[in-house]
Amino acid sequence: EDYARISSSVIAHKLQLDNGEIRWIIDSVVGKEDGLGVENIHGSAAIASAYSRAYEETFTLTFVTGRTVGIGAYLARLGIRCIQRLDQPIILTGFSALNKLLGREVYSSHMQLGGPKIMATNGVVHLTVSDDLEGVSNILRWLSYVPANIGGPLPITKPLDPPDRPVAYIPENTCDPRAAIRGVDDSQGKWLGGMFDKDSFVETFEGWAKTVVTGRAKLGGIPVGVIAVETQTMMQLIPADPGQLDSHERSVPRAGQVWFPDSATKTAQALLDFNREGLPLFILANWRGFSGGQRDLFEGILQAGSAIVENLRTYNQPAFVYIPMAGELRGGAWVVIDSKINPDRIECYAERTAKGNVLEPQGLIEIKFRSEELQDCMGRLDPELINLKAKLQDAKHGNGSLPDIESLQKSIEARTKQLLPLYTQIAVRFAELHDTSLRMAAKGVIKKVVDWEESRYFFYKRLRRRIFEDLVAKEIRRIIGDNFTRQSAMELINEWYLASQATTGSTAGWDDDDAFVAWKDSPENYKGYIQELRAQKVSQSLSDLADSSSDLQAFSQGLSTLLDKMDPSQRVKFVQEVKKVLG
Amino acid sequence: EDYARISSSVIAHKLQLDNGEIRWIIDSVVGKEDGLGVENIHGSAAIASAYSRAYEETFTLTFVTGRTVGIGAYLARLGIRCIQRLDQPIILTGFSALNKLLGREVYSSHMQLGGPKIMATNGVVHLTVSDDLEGVSNILRWLSYVPANIGGPLPITKPLDPPDRPVAYIPENTCDPRAAIRGVDDSQGKWLGGMFDKDSFVETFEGWAKTVVTGRAKLGGIPVGVIAVETQTMMQLIPADPGQLDSHERSVPRAGQVWFPDSATKTAQALLDFNREGLPLFILANWRGFSGGQRDLFEGILQAGSAIVENLRTYNQPAFVYIPMAGELRGGAWVVIDSKINPDRIECYAERTAKGNVLEPQGLIEIKFRSEELQDCMGRLDPELINLKAKLQDAKHGNGSLPDIESLQKSIEARTKQLLPLYTQIAVRFAELHDTSLRMAAKGVIKKVVDWEESRYFFYKRLRRRIFEDLVAKEIRRIIGDNFTRQSAMELINEWYLASQATTGSTAGWDDDDAFVAWKDSPENYKGYIQELRAQKVSQSLSDLADSSSDLQAFSQGLSTLLDKMDPSQRVKFVQEVKKVLG
Repeated sequence: EDYARISSSVIAHKLQLDNGEIRWIIDSVVGKEDGLGVENIHGSAAIASAYSRAYEETFTLTFVTGRTVGIGAYLARLGIRCIQRLDQPIILTGFSALNKLLGREVYSSHMQLGGPKIMATNGVVHLTVSDDLEGVSNILRWLSYVPANIGGPLPITKPLDPPDRPVAYIPENTCDPRAAIRGVDDSQGKWLGGMFDKDSFVETFEGWAKTVVTGRAKLGGIPVGVIAVETQTMMQLIPADPGQLDSHERSVPRAGQVWFPDSATKTAQALLDFNREGLPLFILANWRGFSGGQRDLFEGILQAGSAIVENLRTYNQPAFVYIPMAGELRGGAWVVIDSKINPDRIECYAERTAKGNVLEPQGLIEIKFRSEELQDCMGRLDPELINLKAKLQDAKHGNGSLPDIESLQKSIEARTKQLLPLYTQIAVRFAELHDTSLRMAAKGVIKKVVDWEESRYFFYKRLRRRIFEDLVAKEIRRIIGDNFTRQSAMELINEWYLASQATTGSTAGWDDDDAFVAWKDSPENYKGYIQELRAQKVSQSLSDLADSSSDLQAFSQGLSTLLDKMDPSQRVKFVQEVKKVLG
Repeated sequence: EDYARISSSVIAHKLQLDNGEIRWIIDSVVGKEDGLGVENIHGSAAIASAYSRAYEETFTLTFVTGRTVGIGAYLARLGIRCIQRLDQPIILTGFSALNKLLGREVYSSHMQLGGPKIMATNGVVHLTVSDDLEGVSNILRWLSYVPANIGGPLPITKPLDPPDRPVAYIPENTCDPRAAIRGVDDSQGKWLGGMFDKDSFVETFEGWAKTVVTGRAKLGGIPVGVIAVETQTMMQLIPADPGQLDSHERSVPRAGQVWFPDSATKTAQALLDFNREGLPLFILANWRGFSGGQRDLFEGILQAGSAIVENLRTYNQPAFVYIPMAGELRGGAWVVIDSKINPDRIECYAERTAKGNVLEPQGLIEIKFRSEELQDCMGRLDPELINLKAKLQDAKHGNGSLPDIESLQKSIEARTKQLLPLYTQIAVRFAELHDTSLRMAAKGVIKKVVDWEESRYFFYKRLRRRIFEDLVAKEIRRIIGDNFTRQSAMELINEWYLASQATTGSTAGWDDDDAFVAWKDSPENYKGYIQELRAQKVSQSLSDLADSSSDLQAFSQGLSTLLDKMDPSQRVKFVQEVKKVLG
């Protein structure tokens, strides 16, 4: 038989029948050419792995401009950033194949499975667009906010919106996150500016977990990532599951200023994306805490909150947490975004009116000022009560009749009841006095109280300064190596800066952002130091050689290679130098 | 006033009344000592950050032996590995505080919020125990599976269960994951061994996403992480949400061999934990695919599947994917665990009976062998049909009457109908012939077909070999630096090994695990090479100096430090050597 001829594409074995006839049993059909079998999966896996790595190593963005199925859907997710055209689905399996699997007509379209109603409300899709043109222009816009290469300088543009203009939007009872970011038109149609540059804010994940607002904006032309907090109660739509006959669409209210599993996950995802894009971070923090109900715990609020900690801890760009005007930050919510999560990067600030503490005053006094404690207080402070109590004491010691005693007790009760609302109010006020931004600054948990109207200019200057710090620190670490921590680099910069200031007789301290920027703008202020560092490093690595005898043996070999590389005149000089050292 | 005296603990400002009297308005109460305010949160954040980093840098494990609230609950999650005592809750807020917030008596206990019914079914808790003793003994056991320090050697013990015994549990129709891992007692009470050492398997996340089985086991005394697949349909209990009046407990069926959002997340989490613990990995892969229904997409199946890719791509220990006896691996499921996801680490194998492809045969023939195509096939192959069709053709060309034609057409239809089931069966069989492990091996998507009974011994030898490879590769990279990739190190090892084999005249190839282990056990086989590498590195770094003139200036300085470090006799010899080179 001609099995030999086709054995590369068919695997078979011989079978001798009882009558001596020979049959061949086919075990496998391999196929001459690579087809749509396991070899295809193998290739898909290679793409998946490469794209997953690409998200980590560079800027990835997927534009779903046509139906995206199976490995396509995975790629859209593996690259994380994803723009979906409103009429194109992202699915794993076609709806008719699913219907066959389920044995009934459950689904009627691909869009039902993976249209924007699903994908733009669960964190897969960042932006939706109605056509290709809008999609491409959004891609270009997004690219204009990120460095040309990972670790490269931010694309800072000349700001059209002056950095030093005041913030004109003034929050009244609550701080509207979008107005605070991009400003708002007042009733006369006049634009009241927010903290960031006019028309620079691009919101992402708009349909997902609406109690947190995330997006990219510019501050004085510098691109930044922004996370802010919705104060209104939002409705979350949970679609009915066609696969489950008794399910129906549910609309669940989500209180503003509270982190739920979905909004905490959204916060964590935004942090991850911003960090990978090299964007400085602004969190306009205004949370009362995490929602800790049974459903929240079951649905992973701990996992999501921990992801915020993890992603802030590893945040590698300047990060600012600012409790805005009329904002507050408490308990668990504060814990996960405190500066101690990442002291190298996070700086916390609060507006003058901002509040922060573990509990809210009403909750606090129920622990620290229960009714009995308030009554003790009255007995100590209210002259009328003191007087009544003294009389009662007197009466009890035999100087009064029973009716006298009873009437005194009644008077005390009445007085106490009368005073209680007042004292509760005082207690609440007393508790509130522990919530102030002044106290935060006094305890060192925020760096400074920053007034609302000046916040834009203050943060612009501070941001610019910290970006420059990073540039110098990066240069230092490029020279000495990554084992040299950023913190050590910052210490060197501090030292150099203060030395320069002393030399020039300037009184500007380390925290003077303008003075620092001026210092940084004259490289002669530190280029010498950096050259010295380089020399130190060479000398260090040479002297490290003495620790290993086999290294010393290699020394001669290396030296001769080095000599070969030099041009003759250089070599002569070098040899003289070295001989001098050798003695 | 004595404001000056207390100004460190109270912030106030003066107010002059119209009548000239002076009052002080208290703005903030800072407090003399640090209390339970923002300063407390500040400290909590520091712990949270440290513990989050600890999970990355070392082995963390939390034993919840008492009520764990707020930051405590976050720590339990930030350290990821968590053992919960069955009678102790993990919560964010106490139930009575929640009731007050909600304005009605929703919850009746802390356990309802964060007991094992919630935390051991959502991935926060890895193991539950009934008392402290059991908890501590589980901690000790866990520690016995992980290296003493991160990156250190695995704690390999002498196996009590011989590595070379055959696997005695034989799956019939489906592969029971736990029996395949740890064996099973047969009807006579005789233990039929599984792949891993007797009594070594400790399952984690038992109550979470039950269609995937995860845990730690030993293979010939070597600790490994194991992920296997449930083939039975499991019920998932979704607790009623007391906070929502119309909700009730739901029990949702989860088909075996299919990845759902929860089981995919569980898989990804197990991968992350195993990798951080330095454990080699075994995946007994037996998945038909991902569940791609609307609810699955909404609940993040794409996110979870992508996390599997991500965590396998970054897996840093030897990893084995094995499609076990009676197992299958298809489509999307295969894509995320293919060897191409991480070619340095993952090796794929399949049992002789294992199946794998994109679609299942029944699904495939609906695309490739629709009814029309089968009929074409019959018309080409069945003599009776060929005959009938010829006659029909003849009749149509005027040689037959109308009744003749009709009768012929009926005969053809009848014959076709009769043949269809047979041809469908043949088509399915033909499709099945593309699913075999032999085809996988021929296409190179698996490394080898490994028979079930021998799988234990085969993988033991392979695992031991790959661990040794890693040890040598680590040694090489320790010397040359981490910029030298693991792949380059492996290429060196391969080269050295083959050179040794050539010298000794051995015919054992690179893939001979026994020969490799023997080679590795004689360090003289490669110590010389490693010393040479070290020398090359020194020489390289010296000659790199020539690239920068400022480095050359630093050379003398470094050299003199080096000379100072040497003892006199060494120095004399060294100076002579160097002078020789300088000429």
